[in-house]
Amino acid sequence: MANIAATIITIGDELLIGQTIDTNSAWIAQRLNEIGISILRRVAVADQKDEILKALNEEQQSADILLITGGLGPTSDDITKPLLCSYFNGKMVRSERVETHIRELFGRLNRPIIERNLMQADVPDVCTVLFNRMGTAPGMWFERNGKIFVSMPGVPVEMMVIMQDEVIPRLQQGLTTDAIVHKTTVTAGEGESFIAEKLMGFEERLPAHIRLAYLPDFSIVKLRLTGTGGDPAVLEQEVTALQQELVSILGNIVVATSDLTMEQLLGQTLVGSGSRIGIAESCTGGYIGHCITQVSGSSEYFMGSVVSYDNSIKEKVLGVSAATLDAHGAVSEETATEMVLGALRVLDVDFALATTGVLGPGGGTDRVKVGTVWMAVASKERVVTKMFYFRYDRQRNKEIAAKMGMLFLWRFINNKL
Amino acid sequence: MANIAATIITIGDELLIGQTIDTNSAWIAQRLNEIGISILRRVAVADQKDEILKALNEEQQSADILLITGGLGPTSDDITKPLLCSYFNGKMVRSERVETHIRELFGRLNRPIIERNLMQADVPDVCTVLFNRMGTAPGMWFERNGKIFVSMPGVPVEMMVIMQDEVIPRLQQGLTTDAIVHKTTVTAGEGESFIAEKLMGFEERLPAHIRLAYLPDFSIVKLRLTGTGGDPAVLEQEVTALQQELVSILGNIVVATSDLTMEQLLGQTLVGSGSRIGIAESCTGGYIGHCITQVSGSSEYFMGSVVSYDNSIKEKVLGVSAATLDAHGAVSEETATEMVLGALRVLDVDFALATTGVLGPGGGTDRVKVGTVWMAVASKERVVTKMFYFRYDRQRNKEIAAKMGMLFLWRFINNKL
Repeated sequence: MANIAATIITIGDELLIGQTIDTNSAWIAQRLNEIGISILRRVAVADQKDEILKALNEEQQSADILLITGGLGPTSDDITKPLLCSYFNGKMVRSERVETHIRELFGRLNRPIIERNLMQADVPDVCTVLFNRMGTAPGMWFERNGKIFVSMPGVPVEMMVIMQDEVIPRLQQGLTTDAIVHKTTVTAGEGESFIAEKLMGFEERLPAHIRLAYLPDFSIVKLRLTGTGGDPAVLEQEVTALQQELVSILGNIVVATSDLTMEQLLGQTLVGSGSRIGIAESCTGGYIGHCITQVSGSSEYFMGSVVSYDNSIKEKVLGVSAATLDAHGAVSEETATEMVLGALRVLDVDFALATTGVLGPGGGTDRVKVGTVWMAVASKERVVTKMFYFRYDRQRNKEIAAKMGMLFLWRFINNKL
Repeated sequence: MANIAATIITIGDELLIGQTIDTNSAWIAQRLNEIGISILRRVAVADQKDEILKALNEEQQSADILLITGGLGPTSDDITKPLLCSYFNGKMVRSERVETHIRELFGRLNRPIIERNLMQADVPDVCTVLFNRMGTAPGMWFERNGKIFVSMPGVPVEMMVIMQDEVIPRLQQGLTTDAIVHKTTVTAGEGESFIAEKLMGFEERLPAHIRLAYLPDFSIVKLRLTGTGGDPAVLEQEVTALQQELVSILGNIVVATSDLTMEQLLGQTLVGSGSRIGIAESCTGGYIGHCITQVSGSSEYFMGSVVSYDNSIKEKVLGVSAATLDAHGAVSEETATEMVLGALRVLDVDFALATTGVLGPGGGTDRVKVGTVWMAVASKERVVTKMFYFRYDRQRNKEIAAKMGMLFLWRFINNKL
């Protein structure tokens, strides 16, 4: 078996001026890892001929596969297709299958079709056309000197279907690759230095083909063991055994033994349990509900939430008393408690979570500093409250508040508080 | 003035196996663009010595500034600091300022400090230390052969404060750069091919130093004019005049003349208007409330929302009738209408939006296909409904539904429906 390495080249000025965040590369890397292909490098370049050519020439020196995204649109700033056509000494020909597909797509959307749209069906005669059922720009597969070059649109859904329908099956067919096994352990509540001290002996004993990586994300630290090479089944066993050892060293700070998000962790606990949850959100503005409903099947246990951004909604919908708001303020233990009890009652659920805080940049007072968030979790029998203090900007504070809130609820449901 | 180019090198296996999405690079690119520095390339490499050295050696051939993030943590997989120390022929020395800061940080958090934490204060004696007030790992600034090398932690908040406090001021001091002006126009409702046809003559007349880029994002297309070089004030005037011409060609599909998100656009309309909005969300799960509250100051006009994920909440909290749900189903014009009227009443707002749909992958029926979303917008005087059909995966469908919902509400409020 051989270690097959790919490099991802993303083309587009929007990636270099910071107008777009590159989510494609992470997705592509995950899919390739699943079939045993590792990513050597990722390179982003501008929509400029010389920059694209430089990247093509350089990256094929070290990579076996070059995955290229972007620059396939119908407008004048999209130059990847003619460039690749001439790079591989081809000429443009109209693909009937793609043309038919474009005409159908426009017909379904009831839109007039123009020649510019049909030109999306022109492809170099030296490539294998990769069908794009989600859009008009087909992908292209070229080979030269044992290297594979795949060009795909930068629009995420279109790239994804081409990868799934066309690229992954072709790569699986043609290659025998080294095994790669990743096992991630999620911990909460301790910093990475502290964890590293505890794992010092463990790390020293790791064999050369297995590595440990620390991925801190505020008070959550993910520990990833990666093994490569050899027989896939043996490697799987080896890494699994090491993960079990790691978990037993770390004890109760471990919250999951796979790469789960907090919302997936909650889902794992709740699916099939018959328990139902609901939320009263203030400062998080709906973000926790959004996270929870990212999990397919969450409708089984998530009833809904009341986003009481304004105090009037806290009173009117959740039944927080005006006296409490007056005496203690919206960001207080007392308000969080009344909110969570309101959520239990109004949403008629078994477990509820409430958040109320001030995330910044404005809104701080002498009594309540920016970054303060009160949370409460409750069942019919019990309420637990906790104050958090987050010291980042508005968006990060919201993100951590949501994660900590879901972790707080998860611990409460699992009697780990 | 000179055209100063930077390259961003991100270090970390997590970026190559797809465990982390790189949000740092976009943020860095925006900040550098603001001070007239363009990004030539972005390269991501593994936590491996030879790969990091290769990137350092290659990228300094073409870039003036190399911004390096990642690999500065206290654990064994973090190798950037010793590597840079030996690359620049330095030796490690303890920084007193950083050590004091680390001790203070741990004291404040009430955490025991260990030698591994203090080692974060060791820095190469050949660099300028860049103070990190958000964390323990300082940044480092090296210079060689007229090139600048800046190393920063990969944790976003830490990288951000080092950039703002230390890197940007130093770069501004030392460099005179070319002007760069970006002007973005946001359109909604037409595809990029259609827009490109309308702009054909306009594009042909563009001078060589001004480029037009198309950034399609579902039914929203952003058009970015970028001018470079010459006197900044003259360039600003030139690009502004061209943007005005572009807007007049495109007419009523233009929804904004700066790079605004839908939630910022709504904020622009509502701040200071005295109008208040609220939402009834079903399939979007709280995501629209989340988007709206990403805008600082949104508490002035956003009262809150009811996330009625389960039908029981639609009935109990929003007052949707059981008969309507029975006769027409949750995903119907009738239910959306009763939801929006419920939101107007329960949240006591001037304008409301309601969403109800099935985003997939499960939940579709013969009558209601996966991807169908009914929306309604209302004021006290008027209700408008609309059916949408989204054909992507669960997450993308939610994202587009939220954008289309906010656009629908914006058009309703501005009498553009």
